Amino acid sequence: MRNLSMLTDLYELTMLYGYYKHDLTKRRAVFDLFFRRQGPCAYAVMAGLEQAKEYLANLHFSNEDIDYLRGLKIFDEDFLKWLESLQFKCDVDAVPEGTFVFPGEPLLRVEGPLAQAQLVETTLLNLIGHQTLIATKANRIVRAAQGGKVMEFGLRRAQGPDAGILGARAAVIGGCSSTSNTLAGMAFDIAVTGTHAHSWVGSFPSELEAFRAYGACYPNSCLLLVDTYDTLRSGVPNAITVFRELRDKGHKPRGIRLDSGDLAYLSRKARQMLDEAGFEDAIICASNDLDEYLIRDLKLQGARIDLWGVGTKLITGGDSPALGGVYKLSALEENGVLTPRMKVSDNPEKITLPGKKDLYRVYDAQGKAFADLITLSDEAIDESQPLILFDPKEIWKRTTMHDYQLRKLLQPFFRGGEYVGQDRSVHQISLYRAQDEATIWDEQLRLINPQTYKVDLSQNLWDLRHSVLVKSGKAQP
Amino acid sequence: MRNLSMLTDLYELTMLYGYYKHDLTKRRAVFDLFFRRQGPCAYAVMAGLEQAKEYLANLHFSNEDIDYLRGLKIFDEDFLKWLESLQFKCDVDAVPEGTFVFPGEPLLRVEGPLAQAQLVETTLLNLIGHQTLIATKANRIVRAAQGGKVMEFGLRRAQGPDAGILGARAAVIGGCSSTSNTLAGMAFDIAVTGTHAHSWVGSFPSELEAFRAYGACYPNSCLLLVDTYDTLRSGVPNAITVFRELRDKGHKPRGIRLDSGDLAYLSRKARQMLDEAGFEDAIICASNDLDEYLIRDLKLQGARIDLWGVGTKLITGGDSPALGGVYKLSALEENGVLTPRMKVSDNPEKITLPGKKDLYRVYDAQGKAFADLITLSDEAIDESQPLILFDPKEIWKRTTMHDYQLRKLLQPFFRGGEYVGQDRSVHQISLYRAQDEATIWDEQLRLINPQTYKVDLSQNLWDLRHSVLVKSGKAQP
Repeated sequence: MRNLSMLTDLYELTMLYGYYKHDLTKRRAVFDLFFRRQGPCAYAVMAGLEQAKEYLANLHFSNEDIDYLRGLKIFDEDFLKWLESLQFKCDVDAVPEGTFVFPGEPLLRVEGPLAQAQLVETTLLNLIGHQTLIATKANRIVRAAQGGKVMEFGLRRAQGPDAGILGARAAVIGGCSSTSNTLAGMAFDIAVTGTHAHSWVGSFPSELEAFRAYGACYPNSCLLLVDTYDTLRSGVPNAITVFRELRDKGHKPRGIRLDSGDLAYLSRKARQMLDEAGFEDAIICASNDLDEYLIRDLKLQGARIDLWGVGTKLITGGDSPALGGVYKLSALEENGVLTPRMKVSDNPEKITLPGKKDLYRVYDAQGKAFADLITLSDEAIDESQPLILFDPKEIWKRTTMHDYQLRKLLQPFFRGGEYVGQDRSVHQISLYRAQDEATIWDEQLRLINPQTYKVDLSQNLWDLRHSVLVKSGKAQP
Repeated sequence: MRNLSMLTDLYELTMLYGYYKHDLTKRRAVFDLFFRRQGPCAYAVMAGLEQAKEYLANLHFSNEDIDYLRGLKIFDEDFLKWLESLQFKCDVDAVPEGTFVFPGEPLLRVEGPLAQAQLVETTLLNLIGHQTLIATKANRIVRAAQGGKVMEFGLRRAQGPDAGILGARAAVIGGCSSTSNTLAGMAFDIAVTGTHAHSWVGSFPSELEAFRAYGACYPNSCLLLVDTYDTLRSGVPNAITVFRELRDKGHKPRGIRLDSGDLAYLSRKARQMLDEAGFEDAIICASNDLDEYLIRDLKLQGARIDLWGVGTKLITGGDSPALGGVYKLSALEENGVLTPRMKVSDNPEKITLPGKKDLYRVYDAQGKAFADLITLSDEAIDESQPLILFDPKEIWKRTTMHDYQLRKLLQPFFRGGEYVGQDRSVHQISLYRAQDEATIWDEQLRLINPQTYKVDLSQNLWDLRHSVLVKSGKAQP
């Protein structure tokens, strides 16, 4: 376990020094971590908490760290001594990994001494932003495959080792069935898969000999890459030859992989050739610069692909390579009282939600997620009463729910600096994600132009937000 | 130092097992690492070798690794024993970090036993691809700033810890002057910078008090974030008030930071206000979703910005989040002789270059880079003779150079598994990059539609490539 305490923007430390010098480090503060809408996707799949846990549980500055900071010549010795003795004592609540989450709602809430709650900003954004991005991208890709399996194999194109390792973890949370990344498989006990490269074929005098050699090693699991020379005239026929030889010896080879050419056409033709040779069970795997849009179109054109290998565009997030998460102060102790704070911006999208808050999911009588509801933490919802929901932008739009169920999404994660969350394996998180996914309307998970999921505010929170806007002169009373 | 030996696609290991079972592990092989053109950029800045060195120098499988692989139940004990005893013995040549490199030319060449040279594919692509991507993006951004300094501060949006740490390293190689990433600063001895966030301002009763408190901590280095409430009506005037107070005490505050609004307009106005107050030396720093295109346009519109803070789009590569590097077999021992191999594809762009090769840069009499020349390693160039260069696609285009200098770009990196490269600090690499940059024509470094840099083949290499194409039936004799 690497200690990531120094993995922070220097400005967190320069601010800490400022708080220290002005004796403000212990003021109680609340911060929210959330993301704003981004790209074409209306949802995200929460991920990254296991690494956030390791980071927070290990938060401390070593002698070496302190020596380095001393060398910057911007901090005094008293502060460095204080920093060296710093222990994380905050309360943290978080939405469980694998949960479907939506723009603007708090995914993680940190409450504690101002200096500590501020310090963890950068690293939490990094860890949760990255994995949530990849889990979401993976989910979109898996949904496009409509039941076909997706293996993550982007390690070579990932942005460094962690992006490959943690990205593979997130991809499985999002719905991928396996990864090519051996270290991720070992670290997180997730399924690893792999076959061979073109260089294997190039290392033998002929494609047939290369296939025969590979089949001899993996008679029951070989997936032969058939596009090195000519997919339909050489690759598939040679694969069928080797499959027949293996079948004659009582084996059951796995299938073929296509990695170039038109995957819709080639997969239909290859399926036909395999079927005619009696290999109806042999699978067809395809790869080559895939993403959710190409997979959707290939499916529409009748591609016969059972297993999709997705690399670059999954492991990097493709054309949206960052979640755009933010971490904002929402309450601060003033004269002993926790007082709501919010960022008042001319840009309505950048106005934050004041106060210490909770997040609930509202389910309808059929068990489908109807809306999320953000409340102030000190208000209780009486579930025996009808629930009135209203759109925080178009406030005349109101719905009264009579038959509903509430689930609190922000769950205890740290209390007084101690981890109190629930450990789950990546496999368990992925199963939970599938259950959660089934409660969300397909229309809200559509690849483009999805129906917006309602994230509503309680009347109290709305009133508080409005009163701050009025005070600042940004809204009419 | 983490051991990254298991950071590999499983298919490298399944192929190794295949080579082992067929007694092919020791066949001598040569692989080339290169990238194909990508996005609007015609060049790349080589980076990532220090991490490649650490990976290769530490390559071995631990007991724990072997236990994990045993558990996959696809390898036999003999192989696992062999794998546990594996030591890296290859020769590796690489283009030094900080060098400007171009599509299709070998950036790294690995020669050695087939199994070893194959094994390192995924990790080398990951490490070099990532850092080269970010160094290149950083260079484009720094070039757009035309002498303005650029600080990298994308850690919070980076794809995991390594993407932040190694990305900061690459950004400085590419030309950034500093990073916000404290851990990267410590690990690579690069300059770290930081100021404060909006939450600092929100933690005080007023902006003025927040500025005063910050100025008290950093009287000579404070960079005040002036956009929390209203940049021109509140932020800049309050900053000037605090700067005056500091000046009266003999201090010299650093300047202000803009993080929203129209940066061209606001920076011109803020410059005027600072100048009128006698703070001509105070710098203006700007941030907010910047990239090379926006910086170029802001400069064109007269923005008065001295320091650019660039985050998300630098640290992720923006809309091109992967370099697209590949690693291809180019020669393989056959009957004791190293024999050229190449991928023959219907797609001309995917045809590789056969044989063990070298890479030279050809400089003209003025010291400008005229072209790169890829040769076979066993051919010598007589520098006393004129050099005939021809376009490998339009072969009738020929240039004869009389007054030229050659520089061999592929430099010894490992010999027989021992590191023989030259260690340089990130600072030294960045200085070297600046020197190298000065030899490349501006036209070839343009942000969009750059002039293509010539990457030519020697006559011998061209003839070899053509003869293989003829043999395969893809080309006319």
